[in-house]
Amino acid sequence: MNPKLRHVLSARDFTREFIEGIIASAAVMEKALVEKTVLPNHAGRVISTFFFERSTRTRISFEDAAHLLGAQVIPCENAKESSSVGKGESYEDTFRVLGGYPLDAIICRSDKSNLGELARFSQVPIISAGDGGGEHPTQALLDLYTIWKEIGRLDELCVLLHGDLQSRPVRSLAIALSSFERNMSIFVGPEKLQLEKETMEFFFLSRRMEVRTPFVPPVLDLRLKLWEEVDVVYLTRFQDERKVISPEEYAVARRDFFFSPDKLGKMQKHARVLHPLPKRDDEVDPALTPEFDHRIAWFRQAHNGVPVRMALLHWVFTGEFYNPPLW
Amino acid sequence: MNPKLRHVLSARDFTREFIEGIIASAAVMEKALVEKTVLPNHAGRVISTFFFERSTRTRISFEDAAHLLGAQVIPCENAKESSSVGKGESYEDTFRVLGGYPLDAIICRSDKSNLGELARFSQVPIISAGDGGGEHPTQALLDLYTIWKEIGRLDELCVLLHGDLQSRPVRSLAIALSSFERNMSIFVGPEKLQLEKETMEFFFLSRRMEVRTPFVPPVLDLRLKLWEEVDVVYLTRFQDERKVISPEEYAVARRDFFFSPDKLGKMQKHARVLHPLPKRDDEVDPALTPEFDHRIAWFRQAHNGVPVRMALLHWVFTGEFYNPPLW
Amino acid sequence: MNPKLRHVLSARDFTREFIEGIIASAAVMEKALVEKTVLPNHAGRVISTFFFERSTRTRISFEDAAHLLGAQVIPCENAKESSSVGKGESYEDTFRVLGGYPLDAIICRSDKSNLGELARFSQVPIISAGDGGGEHPTQALLDLYTIWKEIGRLDELCVLLHGDLQSRPVRSLAIALSSFERNMSIFVGPEKLQLEKETMEFFFLSRRMEVRTPFVPPVLDLRLKLWEEVDVVYLTRFQDERKVISPEEYAVARRDFFFSPDKLGKMQKHARVLHPLPKRDDEVDPALTPEFDHRIAWFRQAHNGVPVRMALLHWVFTGEFYNPPLW
Repeated sequence: MNPKLRHVLSARDFTREFIEGIIASAAVMEKALVEKTVLPNHAGRVISTFFFERSTRTRISFEDAAHLLGAQVIPCENAKESSSVGKGESYEDTFRVLGGYPLDAIICRSDKSNLGELARFSQVPIISAGDGGGEHPTQALLDLYTIWKEIGRLDELCVLLHGDLQSRPVRSLAIALSSFERNMSIFVGPEKLQLEKETMEFFFLSRRMEVRTPFVPPVLDLRLKLWEEVDVVYLTRFQDERKVISPEEYAVARRDFFFSPDKLGKMQKHARVLHPLPKRDDEVDPALTPEFDHRIAWFRQAHNGVPVRMALLHWVFTGEFYNPPLW
Repeated sequence: MNPKLRHVLSARDFTREFIEGIIASAAVMEKALVEKTVLPNHAGRVISTFFFERSTRTRISFEDAAHLLGAQVIPCENAKESSSVGKGESYEDTFRVLGGYPLDAIICRSDKSNLGELARFSQVPIISAGDGGGEHPTQALLDLYTIWKEIGRLDELCVLLHGDLQSRPVRSLAIALSSFERNMSIFVGPEKLQLEKETMEFFFLSRRMEVRTPFVPPVLDLRLKLWEEVDVVYLTRFQDERKVISPEEYAVARRDFFFSPDKLGKMQKHARVLHPLPKRDDEVDPALTPEFDHRIAWFRQAHNGVPVRMALLHWVFTGEFYNPPLW
Repeated sequence: MNPKLRHVLSARDFTREFIEGIIASAAVMEKALVEKTVLPNHAGRVISTFFFERSTRTRISFEDAAHLLGAQVIPCENAKESSSVGKGESYEDTFRVLGGYPLDAIICRSDKSNLGELARFSQVPIISAGDGGGEHPTQALLDLYTIWKEIGRLDELCVLLHGDLQSRPVRSLAIALSSFERNMSIFVGPEKLQLEKETMEFFFLSRRMEVRTPFVPPVLDLRLKLWEEVDVVYLTRFQDERKVISPEEYAVARRDFFFSPDKLGKMQKHARVLHPLPKRDDEVDPALTPEFDHRIAWFRQAHNGVPVRMALLHWVFTGEFYNPPLW
């Protein structure tokens, strides 16, 4: 692989320095957006959003980020159906072709956990926008940016990951958190939807991050004591479409892990509730809005996607952060 | 709602002054397009065309308008399937997220009559590109622009609305016409496809516009006398997909309200036939083209969509018309 | 038809001078892309990629080409489903509307061989991106550019066209080759998938190109002698979706016309294997990559699509080649 190619494929590649650099750049960019001052100008650059699975929210925030930097975008939001993969072409061939066009980055959402392997065939930087049962590294960056903005630090956090623990955002966030110091991740979800052993061992063996998974149902009593202690609750959607458990079990999981105002009520004032969205009304009480309680941070979190992806695109294009770290 | 937000949601919000301002701007823009002279430069602005229902014609004319002004576009032409709504997300959440991104306008086609309600959650101006069984306000603007260009006035018009009267273009055009003086709208269509009572009462009670709905089948004899008197015939497509009547009744309606050369033949020389398109060969005689008879204005009408939407985008971006009214 | 309109609809319209002009322009553009030097600036121009059939590869290379020249793009990759054609609109009406918008070119992929007819209704240049069972003229341009780059000449070539001979790329390439001198095309494919008589007669009667079609199965012995002589082998995908033969016959054809390393082994050192892609593993041995053997040129061929389409767009926009011919 060309060492100059700045692929963004896994949160495991994110050092503390990298994450801080992106966060600092994003903060500068967000300020410039609000104050309508000058932003880096990447006119002449072209990216493609090449999505084997649809994901409007992620695609739009990447495209907005690119346009705000002056870059052009070639959208492809249904690559699986529309590309030659449907005619029997291998993913490898698709990447050999696409990765040889004059492009400055390919933002790729895959339906398989294959982006690391495929990126080897590309002469263009690949940015993962989520891959199969794997990772969603840019979601982790915007989650960390949100925690940093809302709580003020990325060390010494107690983070409760709650719901479908096999989701990409949970995996990538927990990995990214482990690049910082003295964080504790607590995994609370159905027994059959726990994070896989390999990733848990990564935390223990490679990162020395404290991890707890004591809370599988029926543990409602135990769990109740948690809300008072955590800094961050990270809710996730139950991904029925992955069919890991039966429809009936998903319905039970939604009921067991429903997030309601009384749980929020136990939380500390400085704590925040994040959710990668979309959420469903039978997973999260629809009364929980930012107007209802400022600790509900998920829409602010979603909006942070644009400056964070601007910062990341700038880094992929230039190899530099937009500004020296702010702290 | 932020009072500075210039949403465009209903023809009911269009004052005479607003419509005249848009028409004057569109005329200046159209002239600049033809003569390849300077246009307003909105480089740096980004809009999204966010369509819950596909509508290629409307989407392309909005995107062309945006690009001709130098703005960038994030297309999403199949938002229902591709967005998180398919994963159980509420429309409200979709608008809270999208409406918090750094965008200069969201052009939204909805499959429900809900844009007024949803716009409350957006910090970005929402421009309706048609909503459910509701309105299509920008279609009304280009229809009025077409009538103004072709006939020279927007007052004292006799307008025959013909076909499926529950269509959005009919509703929005009739409402927009009622902002001018001494116009008469005549609704000719199947008894089960008449405009709803609430809108008809709006004309009587709020706008003092003269409205006639005497012509339901079998009234072919009566109807024949009409063609000689009208200034504008506004044909519409029978929208089978809405399933208001049975397939057999749609077939009968198409036959009863077929627009043929002999009807055109009775019309005055200055009169014009408009159609929001698409049209079908079993609704309108395919021999009727602009080359066949200059009174066939529907392709010129469609082409007016671009300068009118340029004028509207400019107003949404700046709060100003592009030029003082021409008359 | 407006004589100034530079439609690109058929390889039959390509003179030797035109092809050489495009190739020379593409070479200059490719050099500028690699060296990151100046390219023609078509800021302010807007094109639409209007595809009645999906074709991600072709669409993306056209959009990349447009963006690299500074032009803007309105994508429509699923026009059949999303446009009004689905509501019963005629293709003619679609082209009358689209072809009257302020656009600088419409890149159209059609599912019918109707682009020549439809272009008459457009005031905007139409560039075919493949039409039904007809042609794919821009594929022919990039194929010739590839042959010119890889072999150094476009005259006196022996070209073996191999596989599904009714495919658009085969037809357009053979026609384009006939504009040059002393080329021989050899068609090797299943008896039921031979190029139609009308095109073969065109070669004999209008172009004096030597054409041979002696090789239908079972002729494996004869065919074996070919590989040593040819300059170019042009493989094609068997297009099951066209259903010209039965699924069983397609399976047999794939086996009979499988391209394997031993066939490549017989070829001359300067010879090249092209393929318009996508290819399938049961048509072409997956071991055949450019790393395996430099004569495998199909990925370089695909990548040539961008500079060639840049050269073509520049010509459509301006009527001029970007540079005087290089030779």
